[in-house]
Amino acid sequence: MNFGDSLTVVNLGVAAFGENVATAGGRCVSLAWQPPGQGDPQAARDLAAALADPRIDKANATAFARFLAARPGLVDIAAARDAIPAMRGARLVLHAGPPIAWTDMCGPMRGAILGAVVLEGWAGDVDAARKLVDRGQVELAPCHHHGAVGPMAGIVCPSMPVFVVENGAGGTRAVSNLNEGLGKVLRFGANAPAVIERLRWQRDVLAPTLRAALARTGPIELLPIMAQALTMGDEVHNRNAAATALLFKRIAPALVGGDVAGDAAAAALAFLAGNDHFFLNLSMAACKAMLDAAHGVAHSSLVTVMARNGVNFGVRLSGTRERWFEAPANPIEGLYFPGYSVADAAADLGDSAITETAGLGGFAMAAAPAIVKFVGGSADDALHHSLRMREITIGSNPAFALPALDFAPGAAGIDARKVVDRGILPIINSGIAHREAGVGQIGAGVTTAPMACFVKAVEALARESS
Amino acid sequence: MNFGDSLTVVNLGVAAFGENVATAGGRCVSLAWQPPGQGDPQAARDLAAALADPRIDKANATAFARFLAARPGLVDIAAARDAIPAMRGARLVLHAGPPIAWTDMCGPMRGAILGAVVLEGWAGDVDAARKLVDRGQVELAPCHHHGAVGPMAGIVCPSMPVFVVENGAGGTRAVSNLNEGLGKVLRFGANAPAVIERLRWQRDVLAPTLRAALARTGPIELLPIMAQALTMGDEVHNRNAAATALLFKRIAPALVGGDVAGDAAAAALAFLAGNDHFFLNLSMAACKAMLDAAHGVAHSSLVTVMARNGVNFGVRLSGTRERWFEAPANPIEGLYFPGYSVADAAADLGDSAITETAGLGGFAMAAAPAIVKFVGGSADDALHHSLRMREITIGSNPAFALPALDFAPGAAGIDARKVVDRGILPIINSGIAHREAGVGQIGAGVTTAPMACFVKAVEALARESS
Repeated sequence: MNFGDSLTVVNLGVAAFGENVATAGGRCVSLAWQPPGQGDPQAARDLAAALADPRIDKANATAFARFLAARPGLVDIAAARDAIPAMRGARLVLHAGPPIAWTDMCGPMRGAILGAVVLEGWAGDVDAARKLVDRGQVELAPCHHHGAVGPMAGIVCPSMPVFVVENGAGGTRAVSNLNEGLGKVLRFGANAPAVIERLRWQRDVLAPTLRAALARTGPIELLPIMAQALTMGDEVHNRNAAATALLFKRIAPALVGGDVAGDAAAAALAFLAGNDHFFLNLSMAACKAMLDAAHGVAHSSLVTVMARNGVNFGVRLSGTRERWFEAPANPIEGLYFPGYSVADAAADLGDSAITETAGLGGFAMAAAPAIVKFVGGSADDALHHSLRMREITIGSNPAFALPALDFAPGAAGIDARKVVDRGILPIINSGIAHREAGVGQIGAGVTTAPMACFVKAVEALARESS
Repeated sequence: MNFGDSLTVVNLGVAAFGENVATAGGRCVSLAWQPPGQGDPQAARDLAAALADPRIDKANATAFARFLAARPGLVDIAAARDAIPAMRGARLVLHAGPPIAWTDMCGPMRGAILGAVVLEGWAGDVDAARKLVDRGQVELAPCHHHGAVGPMAGIVCPSMPVFVVENGAGGTRAVSNLNEGLGKVLRFGANAPAVIERLRWQRDVLAPTLRAALARTGPIELLPIMAQALTMGDEVHNRNAAATALLFKRIAPALVGGDVAGDAAAAALAFLAGNDHFFLNLSMAACKAMLDAAHGVAHSSLVTVMARNGVNFGVRLSGTRERWFEAPANPIEGLYFPGYSVADAAADLGDSAITETAGLGGFAMAAAPAIVKFVGGSADDALHHSLRMREITIGSNPAFALPALDFAPGAAGIDARKVVDRGILPIINSGIAHREAGVGQIGAGVTTAPMACFVKAVEALARESS
């Protein structure tokens, strides 16, 4: 080429360099590149070591194969105290995300815990409940420490009914609470008498009714429902309309002509028919059971947990077992309900990112253009989200085929090394809670897991493996 | 340009001209263009007259507005003889498509008519039924002559239950039979005792059960279900999994705790839960009611009926009222079930193209990439099908938004003039019946309405208007 030729420049990193080219009359495409490991030389060295370590690749293959082999099924609906050994006789309340002290919790989580204390009858009202918790007389722990998951505040307390999901092949078992619907609900921090009343109804009427149906249907395989829902516009995190309808079709015939009283059956069916999010909690428990099957493989950099407590985002890897790697949660870009803005929003909250960890939700956006409309964006954005996640995953899951990508299997199995190396963050679809307890959902949007979690996780893995 | 420059040529029409350019070393893009009206000068003059006639544009606007304003609702499930006045006391059997003589009918339609005669008890078995029909002692008429529609053979006989759909605003009313599921069924020409038995069960158990549910739910608005199904992977013709699930959610709670016997309710729900096509017939009746609202507007070139009798494809326009414009049906390009090929296939059959006439089915393929997999093709093909239909429609229907096209309203309201002028044929999704009665469905695919129907229709409209 000659000096006189026009220049077209690709600029990596600092955008200002590219601007100079443009000012001088050249064409410049700036790429948002930054050095892996957020520019920290030690992190880059740890990453290089981890990327070059064949034990990690081997461990990932083992862990990912266990994840793919999982076949989660709904086997029971039980009281949490019967499904979670540590809850028997204990004043234990589980919450979403990594561990966090009562005094550090966000408004919705605090409100939800107080509601749980009232539901359990440990205190007569919310004020009395607050005093009890302030005095340290209620034990608090993450759901994930007890094989559980819960959306938003993620509260599970002893008398609360839970879905029991078993992956017989992998020997794993996960539980989740029952979805309460929208509006003022415990998971968004509401704890008014009507909220507690609904939870009592779920415990005393809904759960026994669904349990009776389940006794007639037998265990319900969840992967086929999730797979079919992906062909019906759900990404099975923020949109569960199809999965809920498919579950409803399985449950309803078992409630007709059985032993369940007609009014209880009718109320249960009306509740399910009116709550398109009902399947979410089952999806979460299924994902948890699938990922737990892959957990604890030494050296594996497979991400088995992503969860948020409303303050911090926490990540666990298969190979680093029970360790959490945390960082402040990223803000949520989304659409707010009329009258609300980002200033009203709590930080990213809930265990529901377990669905993204398993390749659903944001990873499966291509299946759910309606979600993009809800959170802002175009149908093309949805395709690109799903395609981009291929860059940071170990493989793909044929059980989760994406119709709009010609039924290509969905990207699944996040490799923490790839996240750090490629600077691409896992995409998470999320509801947005009001920062104050009890207001409820104020929007929905897309966020990402924070990079620092993955940098710390890779550092830890590299050092454990060195 | 200079003689020495390289040439890039766009070739219209006969492909051989373009091949010469390529042979001489030039680049050539051949477009599959042909003169409007299939090259017939009189047809081209009629088309030119119709395109220039402002009365037609005005009539189309009126007709299309009536179509858009329609709000079809399921108001009853009744015996056909109670819903179709001409059936009272008559040996009348309705069939799909334009009129056709008994001796000219295809195998599946003949088999289905014989089954209907047995079902009605006019003959004791199929052989006796054939003699009765051969002697002309059973009256045969198109569904469309009696405000009815039926998929495939489209059989409606007096004792058969029908969905009654009313568009209160437009004063129209349409009926359709109840879907029997897949396998050996009357609509594919099967008439063995098990087929008749299922039809009796539908008449004696299913229909009264659904009717009792409908009495409790009240009329069920169909557009919201169809609109929601489009966001859930249905095009509401060949794929009705979501629409059926949504209908199921409406029906099931009304069957619990009501007056219906538990075993009847359980059997009805099990049937619906096991038949993802159940909503098809309701979709067809809804489309018929919507299009009938637009029918009979003088001068309008809006297509209000497309229907196939297994031999011929027939079209009606709003402005030419009860006249049929027919041509031999096009073959169906599709995927065949193992062991079958195009040699086994009956010609395109059924009234279900009423869904395409209303902007669903092939027109809404963008909503249903799973259909493309079923019939052959890619997700991009699905988008292009829906986009191409914009070229031949009067407008679009905001009630039928297509998620994968960023919720653009679906193309709707076929203008026969545009079909002829642009040489673009309406796309139709269709099941494929075996050419012999009783074998059943052997595949599914995509076909097009034949051009000659539209050429004849435009000629007739132009002459009526001249």
